Amino acid sequence: MKIICSKADLVNGVGIVSKAVPSRTTMSILECILITASNGVIRLTANDMEMGIETKVRGTIEENGMIALDATIFGDIVRKLPDGPITISTDLSLKTTITCMKSTFVLPGRSGDDFAFLPKISRDEFITISQYTLKEVIRQTYFSISDNDSNKIMSGELFDIDGEKLRVVSLDGHRISIRNIELRQKYDTRKVIVSGKTLNEISKILSGEVEREVNLFFMPNHIVFEFDDTIVVSRIIEGEYFDVDQMMAGTYNSVVHINRKALLSCIERSTLLIKEGDKKPVIIGINDTLMELKINSTIGSMDEEIDVEKEGDDILIGFNPRFLIDALKVIDDETVTIYMISAKAPCFIKDDLGKYIYVILPVNFNTVM
Amino acid sequence: MKIICSKADLVNGVGIVSKAVPSRTTMSILECILITASNGVIRLTANDMEMGIETKVRGTIEENGMIALDATIFGDIVRKLPDGPITISTDLSLKTTITCMKSTFVLPGRSGDDFAFLPKISRDEFITISQYTLKEVIRQTYFSISDNDSNKIMSGELFDIDGEKLRVVSLDGHRISIRNIELRQKYDTRKVIVSGKTLNEISKILSGEVEREVNLFFMPNHIVFEFDDTIVVSRIIEGEYFDVDQMMAGTYNSVVHINRKALLSCIERSTLLIKEGDKKPVIIGINDTLMELKINSTIGSMDEEIDVEKEGDDILIGFNPRFLIDALKVIDDETVTIYMISAKAPCFIKDDLGKYIYVILPVNFNTVM
Repeated sequence: MKIICSKADLVNGVGIVSKAVPSRTTMSILECILITASNGVIRLTANDMEMGIETKVRGTIEENGMIALDATIFGDIVRKLPDGPITISTDLSLKTTITCMKSTFVLPGRSGDDFAFLPKISRDEFITISQYTLKEVIRQTYFSISDNDSNKIMSGELFDIDGEKLRVVSLDGHRISIRNIELRQKYDTRKVIVSGKTLNEISKILSGEVEREVNLFFMPNHIVFEFDDTIVVSRIIEGEYFDVDQMMAGTYNSVVHINRKALLSCIERSTLLIKEGDKKPVIIGINDTLMELKINSTIGSMDEEIDVEKEGDDILIGFNPRFLIDALKVIDDETVTIYMISAKAPCFIKDDLGKYIYVILPVNFNTVM
Repeated sequence: MKIICSKADLVNGVGIVSKAVPSRTTMSILECILITASNGVIRLTANDMEMGIETKVRGTIEENGMIALDATIFGDIVRKLPDGPITISTDLSLKTTITCMKSTFVLPGRSGDDFAFLPKISRDEFITISQYTLKEVIRQTYFSISDNDSNKIMSGELFDIDGEKLRVVSLDGHRISIRNIELRQKYDTRKVIVSGKTLNEISKILSGEVEREVNLFFMPNHIVFEFDDTIVVSRIIEGEYFDVDQMMAGTYNSVVHINRKALLSCIERSTLLIKEGDKKPVIIGINDTLMELKINSTIGSMDEEIDVEKEGDDILIGFNPRFLIDALKVIDDETVTIYMISAKAPCFIKDDLGKYIYVILPVNFNTVM
């Protein structure tokens, strides 16, 4: 194999596929990036067996072939080379020479034949959304997947397509995040659980531009994200997702409209008094047009008031401040509305248009505190 | 005590004195920042017994007094409060109330009487330099103090004042860094070894402006840095510093002029092939007008050429690439000159004006490699 690419193109390509190089693996070939040059296309591929990424790199092919190179070392070298055309050539013993201007690196390569290639993609069923939308939806739901490995389904997010609607859901047993997206056309009904880790990595690669699109292809065991010059293949999480609609029932007794930033910075302040691992709730009392937040810990106490608009009953309710912070951070609205049933039932932060719903379970607390 | 300060002034003051709060200590009072309000001045103080910092904060004193507050919690709260006037008041039980707009924190304070106050400063003997010069000199020498605690003197830097010259020296047994500064007037001869840790913390606080000055006061056991509204007191390291001049002897057989950035990025590339803890040298061969750099490790090999101007003999010499990188990074000149005696004698990177000298010991290597 012999190819010539610009430094910028190679750095970009390596940056994309590196997201699928496992940090630990028993199959050492997976620590490599596979470079293939054939049919006039140069491709980089990495695959950690849960997720695989393949991206095209512009360049000149002087000799077809393929080689697998240690991802870390190859990436470091490419990034540190001078700005100029980079030539990568291999010999029969798989020795790989990387040359740029007056600098020459020689590395041992590995045969591409041992590499775990990506599954063949069937392009029959797919939906199209903008990169902006996908990136935003991941940012707005990713925080509430469970980091506990014991429930595989909670480590993923539900992509629920129904006609012209896509609903993305994540939950961890204490809270639920839901984002609803209007699709540009009608699609068949389909529910898929996508690995949260994959979504997080994809969101780092997406340009996030409104005009650029992503195609999502659905296969029996995989979901494929195709955008720009890149394909990400991810194994689907098997199983039935939780019935979220059933968790939404209830009549709201207190509805509060409040400035999002004021509430967010007040709750962030309250966490200063909580030591790592301590489970102190922030106590929110709503009386007429005043919300009073209190926290009391071994470190000290805090008390703060925020003006609100309220409909319905006064209420005293406790929350894990982290859960409120996570939700308030990803909402873009200036004012948020909080719907509450009682001090022991979940509260709902949602907008009038039904674009988002954040459900948070309250925490029991001793009212005598 | 009752004082009112702006958030910005308090955040700035806390940021400065926090550098002297020890991360671990058996004296828990040292984990505090001492706030004192008396004689119309509000002061913050912290002291880890090696280094103490005191800074003035603008504000209004409504009641004189002093209080010691946990540095981490007090700092976090001050930073997270809304932008507005912050009132700090204490009661007889040392309970401290911090109020800003509608937010109120209550913390337990500690008596200032237990605090380790800074030694009284005698202002008899001092020199004055610009903040810019002091900050630069620390940046340009700090990297070659020894991180090995076994030799206390190597953990400091020599401040050697002789007439109108200040020479700052650091060394770690493998290399020496020397910076010479012209003083604005003549001072008495004086040699002081200053803790590298203190210098590093001071360089973070210094604004680094050319027009702003620092006074360095010399006391029997301490050196004091006074600048802006801040005083840093540091215990002097006792002992006799190494005789650096004696290490400078030798006749140069090879002198090379080379572009600093080209050499730096080439050596940085070579380190990609060195695993953590591996001691592979970079081999530099100079033939006529070409410098060839080679490195050979278990990961792979690199070979690169750079154009140079040479006077004297050809030479083949090996270096720890890290040592070359550290020195080349802090030199500002476009072209550097390297003076070499032999493959087994120290090499010197120095300028014509005598502003800097970096001495680096070469590494033995097997020429058959």
